[in-house]
Amino acid sequence: MVSREREQGSAQAAEGPFWLGIDLGGTNIKSGVVDDQGHPLSSVCRPTEAEKGPAVGLINLAEAGRQAVAEAGLTLDQIAGVGLGSPGLMDIHAGLLIDPPNLPGWTNLPIRRLLEEKLGRPTAFQNDANAAAFGEFWVGAGREVESLVLFTLGTGVGCGIIDNGRLIEGRHSHGAECGHIIIQMEGGREWPPGYFGRLEAYASATALVKRAVEALDRDRNLTTSLRTLLAQDNLSSRTIFEAADAGDALAKRLVRETARYLAVGAVNLMHTIDPDMVLFAGGMIAAGPSFLEQIRADIREMAFPIPARATRIEYAALGVDAGFIGAAGWARFKFKP
Amino acid sequence: MVSREREQGSAQAAEGPFWLGIDLGGTNIKSGVVDDQGHPLSSVCRPTEAEKGPAVGLINLAEAGRQAVAEAGLTLDQIAGVGLGSPGLMDIHAGLLIDPPNLPGWTNLPIRRLLEEKLGRPTAFQNDANAAAFGEFWVGAGREVESLVLFTLGTGVGCGIIDNGRLIEGRHSHGAECGHIIIQMEGGREWPPGYFGRLEAYASATALVKRAVEALDRDRNLTTSLRTLLAQDNLSSRTIFEAADAGDALAKRLVRETARYLAVGAVNLMHTIDPDMVLFAGGMIAAGPSFLEQIRADIREMAFPIPARATRIEYAALGVDAGFIGAAGWARFKFKP
Repeated sequence: MVSREREQGSAQAAEGPFWLGIDLGGTNIKSGVVDDQGHPLSSVCRPTEAEKGPAVGLINLAEAGRQAVAEAGLTLDQIAGVGLGSPGLMDIHAGLLIDPPNLPGWTNLPIRRLLEEKLGRPTAFQNDANAAAFGEFWVGAGREVESLVLFTLGTGVGCGIIDNGRLIEGRHSHGAECGHIIIQMEGGREWPPGYFGRLEAYASATALVKRAVEALDRDRNLTTSLRTLLAQDNLSSRTIFEAADAGDALAKRLVRETARYLAVGAVNLMHTIDPDMVLFAGGMIAAGPSFLEQIRADIREMAFPIPARATRIEYAALGVDAGFIGAAGWARFKFKP
Repeated sequence: MVSREREQGSAQAAEGPFWLGIDLGGTNIKSGVVDDQGHPLSSVCRPTEAEKGPAVGLINLAEAGRQAVAEAGLTLDQIAGVGLGSPGLMDIHAGLLIDPPNLPGWTNLPIRRLLEEKLGRPTAFQNDANAAAFGEFWVGAGREVESLVLFTLGTGVGCGIIDNGRLIEGRHSHGAECGHIIIQMEGGREWPPGYFGRLEAYASATALVKRAVEALDRDRNLTTSLRTLLAQDNLSSRTIFEAADAGDALAKRLVRETARYLAVGAVNLMHTIDPDMVLFAGGMIAAGPSFLEQIRADIREMAFPIPARATRIEYAALGVDAGFIGAAGWARFKFKP
């Protein structure tokens, strides 16, 4: 079952129906209106102010939506549907935030209904990583395929899965929580606290920085530009990738290992979902084609020959807009007549 | 989308349509006719004679089918459809065996079409582990749920996945090859040759025996009934489980570790598919409720709280008949008007 229509021909003047996507994050809310072909007509970013609690947060969510509509030169009654993407813990079908770690205090909040009441438009709800995968599937790097897996690398490792045109949400809204598959069951790194050997403990941007600090601690005589970066409070996944590009040996090793961990994650999904395509998104993709080539090489070594040969391994295409585009696409999927 | 009809009320005299299921294995072919409610009306087992090549094998396949039909008191023209389940390597959609390790020489064989020609009935084709999962979903332990994962423990670790009523076949027929997810990426056991740290290398019946032999080799002074079993050429997963039940310390440890490995596999699928239910099938399930309880305890420790609490962890219900019942159910799914 394919749930999208592909864009035909060249871009034309935007025509309705129009879809509003809102991507709720712990720090910022991103929103935008897209047309029925997935072209963004506006793009807004404003603070979540999560610490002020859900009442203020909901005002900010609605305001982000209204701004995006205004910036697109539209009014709310021209919006066919609203899609809201949010981090977990959640009940997707109930439209309920249960206890999201990045939104402390936003507990047992019927956020889908509350936002629908504020904006007065039909509102769909989805996990943010699932929404991003749906966006890539609809109009991004996966627009030509039927099945894909998206890994989003940041503070954690997010994941979304489309199998034959259908999002795998899971029966308890824990589908595609693939940052939390166990890839090192014995002697594995601990993260989140109390859990061991999970992909996220190795492959997130945060984990890369942590591994760098550990390496610096382990060998205090090692000469590396990462030590300077740490002293300057400037050690991040981005600066580690830059140091690797500049030839720093430790940075190169850390980056190489990161590619390996991501390849392990990809292989596990290739031997479970067997998609057409595995995509990587997030800050790390600024590392460019050589990093992707390292991931591909490791996948070729570890996956069965047929998927190793046939599965496309690519960077995602929609960048930071994937969240709201995907949320808008999800609303379209839910509400388009 | 739910693709089955549930059995209503009490069993009644079998009514058509009737479905023939054939489960092709490297050693034996199992076949049987089931009615439209999934009740087996016959059950046949005969040698594959795989070593004599595909021409002889196909004769045996067709003969197993005819025997099952005759034993059910039917004729072939009363069979609405035939389902064939087979081990891989395969192309499910093309009905093609590519290069199955357990059927050496059965290479690039259009087995679905050839069997259809021999029996003259519409024939559907499926991976054997997928078919078994479909059988459990249709009329087995999963008949009340929408999503399930089945692990079948034997020479290897087979797997089948149903997500919201749909079998995950994969885009290159490598869906649900979860015996080959990587659970120990560093320092992992090698199996199959050239591949490291895969679930199958730890959790199959074969792997259990191998781990027992290694333990005996490592400590030649260790007193254990497993040493006697090895000397008697009687060391198998079954006898190891029996020794554990009888209190043998090494056997108990090996069995406990096996439960742990299976729990890791289950958790990884719970964080990917998030099904209603994870099922275990194969010889090991003779180990009984205490083994299942060990698996459950480890899952509760390693999975996220919500799926840990909500996901049912059970043994499969259809036993060795799951293969042909599932294949028959797959034919029903494909051909039922």
